[in-house]
Amino acid sequence: MAVYTEVSDEELSAFIADYDLGNVLSFKGIAEGVENTNYLIHTEAGPHILTLYEKRVKEEDLPFFLGLMEHLSASGLACPVPVRDREGRMLREIAGRPAAIITFLEGLWIRRPSAEHCAALGATLAKLHLSGQGFAMSRPNALSVGGWRPLYEASGKRTDEIADGLYDELGRELKTLEAEWPRDLPQGVIHADLFPDNVFFLGRNISGVIDFYFACNDALAYDIAICLNAWCFEPDAAFNITKARALLRSYTEMRPFSKEEFDVLPMLARGAAMRFLLTRVYDWLNTSAEALVRPKDPNEYVRKLRFHRSVASTREYGLGE
Amino acid sequence: MAVYTEVSDEELSAFIADYDLGNVLSFKGIAEGVENTNYLIHTEAGPHILTLYEKRVKEEDLPFFLGLMEHLSASGLACPVPVRDREGRMLREIAGRPAAIITFLEGLWIRRPSAEHCAALGATLAKLHLSGQGFAMSRPNALSVGGWRPLYEASGKRTDEIADGLYDELGRELKTLEAEWPRDLPQGVIHADLFPDNVFFLGRNISGVIDFYFACNDALAYDIAICLNAWCFEPDAAFNITKARALLRSYTEMRPFSKEEFDVLPMLARGAAMRFLLTRVYDWLNTSAEALVRPKDPNEYVRKLRFHRSVASTREYGLGE
Repeated sequence: MAVYTEVSDEELSAFIADYDLGNVLSFKGIAEGVENTNYLIHTEAGPHILTLYEKRVKEEDLPFFLGLMEHLSASGLACPVPVRDREGRMLREIAGRPAAIITFLEGLWIRRPSAEHCAALGATLAKLHLSGQGFAMSRPNALSVGGWRPLYEASGKRTDEIADGLYDELGRELKTLEAEWPRDLPQGVIHADLFPDNVFFLGRNISGVIDFYFACNDALAYDIAICLNAWCFEPDAAFNITKARALLRSYTEMRPFSKEEFDVLPMLARGAAMRFLLTRVYDWLNTSAEALVRPKDPNEYVRKLRFHRSVASTREYGLGE
Repeated sequence: MAVYTEVSDEELSAFIADYDLGNVLSFKGIAEGVENTNYLIHTEAGPHILTLYEKRVKEEDLPFFLGLMEHLSASGLACPVPVRDREGRMLREIAGRPAAIITFLEGLWIRRPSAEHCAALGATLAKLHLSGQGFAMSRPNALSVGGWRPLYEASGKRTDEIADGLYDELGRELKTLEAEWPRDLPQGVIHADLFPDNVFFLGRNISGVIDFYFACNDALAYDIAICLNAWCFEPDAAFNITKARALLRSYTEMRPFSKEEFDVLPMLARGAAMRFLLTRVYDWLNTSAEALVRPKDPNEYVRKLRFHRSVASTREYGLGE
């Protein structure tokens, strides 16, 4: 939620002149995007987003992210599209940062998703996975099982500042995940960060999906495990099986699970909870009280992890009863 | 540059339903406004700003600010206008805060104003002053000469952390200002914070003036003294007489100075420099290094104050040569 890099009116006007967008009518830094700086720009051609990529995003990954958005949009998924300048470039530079102009997507994100929203999400996620099949580039998931131990060790014993005994609990969990993590599931491009604030709705319908800056190649079912964590728990940490059922049913109607995907979903959900727990613990321990971006509460994901550890079968998520 | 209060999609939709604006298509927190939280909202009726008034703005002042915008706009000054809901209310409440919907003003603010921009500013400021004459409400200027000593004393000896000897220098200056401050100048509604980021341009023309949350009744010429400080110095602290002349000439073409206004402008400019210096010193000493809003450099205004102290006549600002 911050503007990290200031852009002047002169820089912006010179930059926009290379596009077929007419003049700039206004631009405002917007308080979204933990990783990047975003400006909402009104041009004569309509509203657009100017994104400046800050240090946490690797520059060599940008062609993957931008190319993916263009590919998914061309395949019919509603998502922002990088605009090409007159020389055909999507990735440019402004104020010393890599930058791109992206089409603006109308819509609101839903603070308290209902089962109906979860059903819409399932269909959109399946569509994203199917649309991604033809995308030629690839990018490994740096935050999959192999990336968790370094994160765990970076926080170390200080993990217990979050909750007593958490360091040991996560150590045991990590061993289990490393030993039992499924490796032969159907693979493809996953969004990898499809939280409610990355899915826009207009009324009951999804108007689009945003923020592809964690997208990568991994097990498709892992993406739905992330969504189970992000969409199907209540504020009091209770799992809502109605929402999970809606999500899983609408997803599997468009892309049915293999038997193995069905069997390992609880393990994938534990892994997804672990992945977000580890980054939240790290951010919590390494962000000062008054930093620009407030860290998210790790304890929410401790409770989610424990819940999934108690799940014996995907039937308990509401699928295949 | 911050969003202090979060608004949910549900709160916003319920709020907007009371206006004739159609549905909400999108809303983004924008990183502008040191005092308030601002959202840029796309509605079916077009873009608008939703402002939530935070603690630094006194709620009892809001009818003055909102009424002034409505009055000035009706008088032909380009500025945002508070939108009334179906019951005729401009001031409402959302997320526990006083709030208003304001029309969105296209335009860019100029990071490095030219003499031409200063000329445009002069005419607009005169128009603002003339348009304000018929406004029935009034609000004293809490940050005029009577408000400076409490601010000075609140920072106290720590003022020397900004520059060696500054505490004593400002003490002497304050005595002079208190003794010689002119009190019989033509009065009216002044903007009182007309810095470049509050004036929007489209090409060479001013598209409007924003941020009336320091507006008050005071000497009209004091407003132009603020602009001399905010618009007519170069980044290296050199006074640019070409810009000042352009500003003063275009202003006085529309509203000529009285003889006394002409005579006391250097003293008003010293006072204006003092006013912004004192708040910057206070903010500098009372903001932690990682706060959401970074304080502005007080030393810029030390140099401006010293410059105006060296000025013997308004002729040195380029007027009446």
